[in-house]
Amino acid sequence: MNIQILGAATTKFGEHWHKSLRDLIREACLETVKDAGIKNDKIEAVYIGNMLSGILSGQEQLGPMVAEELGLRVPAIRIEAACASGGLAMHEAISSIESGKYETVLVVGAEKMTDRPQEMVAMALMAAGSDAERQSGATFPALYALMARAHMEKYGTTEKQLAAVAVKNHYHASLNGKAHYPFPIKSEQVLASSKIADPLKLLDCSGISDGASAVIITSKLKIKNEKLKIRIIACEVATDTLGLAQRESLTQLKATKIAGQKAYQRAGVRPKDIDVAELHDCFTIAEIIALEDLGFYQKGEAGPQVLKGATKLGAKGLITNTSGGLKACGHPVGATGVKQIVEITKQLRGEGEKKQVEGAKVGLCHNVGGTGATAVVTILTN
Amino acid sequence: MNIQILGAATTKFGEHWHKSLRDLIREACLETVKDAGIKNDKIEAVYIGNMLSGILSGQEQLGPMVAEELGLRVPAIRIEAACASGGLAMHEAISSIESGKYETVLVVGAEKMTDRPQEMVAMALMAAGSDAERQSGATFPALYALMARAHMEKYGTTEKQLAAVAVKNHYHASLNGKAHYPFPIKSEQVLASSKIADPLKLLDCSGISDGASAVIITSKLKIKNEKLKIRIIACEVATDTLGLAQRESLTQLKATKIAGQKAYQRAGVRPKDIDVAELHDCFTIAEIIALEDLGFYQKGEAGPQVLKGATKLGAKGLITNTSGGLKACGHPVGATGVKQIVEITKQLRGEGEKKQVEGAKVGLCHNVGGTGATAVVTILTN
Repeated sequence: MNIQILGAATTKFGEHWHKSLRDLIREACLETVKDAGIKNDKIEAVYIGNMLSGILSGQEQLGPMVAEELGLRVPAIRIEAACASGGLAMHEAISSIESGKYETVLVVGAEKMTDRPQEMVAMALMAAGSDAERQSGATFPALYALMARAHMEKYGTTEKQLAAVAVKNHYHASLNGKAHYPFPIKSEQVLASSKIADPLKLLDCSGISDGASAVIITSKLKIKNEKLKIRIIACEVATDTLGLAQRESLTQLKATKIAGQKAYQRAGVRPKDIDVAELHDCFTIAEIIALEDLGFYQKGEAGPQVLKGATKLGAKGLITNTSGGLKACGHPVGATGVKQIVEITKQLRGEGEKKQVEGAKVGLCHNVGGTGATAVVTILTN
Repeated sequence: MNIQILGAATTKFGEHWHKSLRDLIREACLETVKDAGIKNDKIEAVYIGNMLSGILSGQEQLGPMVAEELGLRVPAIRIEAACASGGLAMHEAISSIESGKYETVLVVGAEKMTDRPQEMVAMALMAAGSDAERQSGATFPALYALMARAHMEKYGTTEKQLAAVAVKNHYHASLNGKAHYPFPIKSEQVLASSKIADPLKLLDCSGISDGASAVIITSKLKIKNEKLKIRIIACEVATDTLGLAQRESLTQLKATKIAGQKAYQRAGVRPKDIDVAELHDCFTIAEIIALEDLGFYQKGEAGPQVLKGATKLGAKGLITNTSGGLKACGHPVGATGVKQIVEITKQLRGEGEKKQVEGAKVGLCHNVGGTGATAVVTILTN
């Protein structure tokens, strides 16, 4: 695959009450075009990942909105796959270049969530699940709590290990000026925070954020500085049932496993080659399951390793969620998958600043829709 | 482009109060797989076009839902571009084959609209427009009425000419067992129907429908019967501003013009080569503007020609909307773009039954999002 990242940028994630979805999209796009050092008219197509704009903002057909903001009349396509909308938009943009249609494409992920009451947002998010889940009143914390409980019973994973994911990701976020929750927290705080869905507590859950992220990918345009040349070497997607009840197992996400295996094969790399990864930690248990499903650890080993600090900045080996992850950087759902690409791009360019993983050569992004109905795995290298 | 239509089918369009979105999708998919004469496991990816499921049914992430219904775990992507969602899903599915990723792909368009109060649906549909349009209380009939008025003032188009579009499309629908409104109407009825947004009356407007349509496209699988070989020779998309206020002209859709010109060039055909076309007639004026924007008639000529019966079954030259169009076959928004492909496929196979256009060799589908922010033009041949 001969596709490079030409530009990458993200807005700060947070509660942007004074900015609309369109404002956030504009901000991310303009900064990305600037980072790419090109003029808008080099962009031949636009892909945007967004989940909830219809329900929360009454705005669909976001493709033309992005094109309009850039003064373009190019093909503009909105992709929706719940929380994997951003990653899937990336996947489709790559396909569009591989099809020979375009050489340079803009990918945007965006979500505006905080203008609505939290109850409405929580209900809207359940649109990612199955009918049965919605009708039974399940929420996403409840569904992930089922997975956490199953993982604890099968592998002995502990609440302290789950808390260690949150502690690590908040530490990373404290080094990230774009994070929604840029402050460190302690394990005791996580464990003492209010129960949301046992065993998940408030500080095991990602927050509700606004934000937009964008990248420009190209098969042709030259990147002026050779040091900033980041190549996409795989981007694969797989699906699973919408609902948990139809799954073979609660302790793994089959879509993650399939997408991961396909991506490793396509890229010609192994899990041990990955230096830095953005994993889909919508809840702390999700990062632990992802670490295992993507082959970084054997089943049951991820919890103890995270507790030991194996994936924290400064450790040797794979470092995860340097952005702070969904947990602490924030989770504007459609933006997340693209923000992951932005973060890994910065890391591979050596532009990670205080949160730089020294010598990072190969990075991975893992973006999940719902409880794993969609998973996208992207691998990049410098 | 070496992509063929292997299978095509649609549910009846109408008020399916006893069927869910999932039921409609299942029905369309199973009939399409049967029409293709293949087993489900030949399908390597799924694209689904849908606009309103999040707002009206609380269900997003429809890709995995379709895959699940077919017992597949393949990449499954939802595309949203308002009323052009189906056509754009087709466009993206074609790109995915051209990228070399897949050989055989299922494309579905689906919408469930009638379970909600009409006021809610009308508001939901405004998600296809601009913020300013929504905030000013504009509805889609009002926006298309502005276009109709401008067209009447500039070209002398009359209400009787508009009515002729409805009369023709209802006549065609009366021959289509899958149509929502399968009965003929008279010009006097259209002219006497209640004003919705002057000059558009009730019978100038397409209805609110439920339905799902699907096609299977392939670059490899053999079609047993040579007579049933339908090739896609172009599929192009263009965009314009979301809102009417930013447009250069109210009497043409620039996105239609651009997508049409690109499609003719790609296919190597001219407007006069098209024997049968499904045009996006969400309102009668829209078919008249499309006939002109796609080069079938000069500006101002389409109205008189339609009134003369030039585009009605039995006439010589281009016949439009043999399905009944959005106007009379019904307009389940996400389904429409795919239903157009199904109708043209049937026509080119000679399976049009009572509504067959004799000797049809080349067909065109034209699918529009909102008031023209997205337009997709697809050309097929036998």
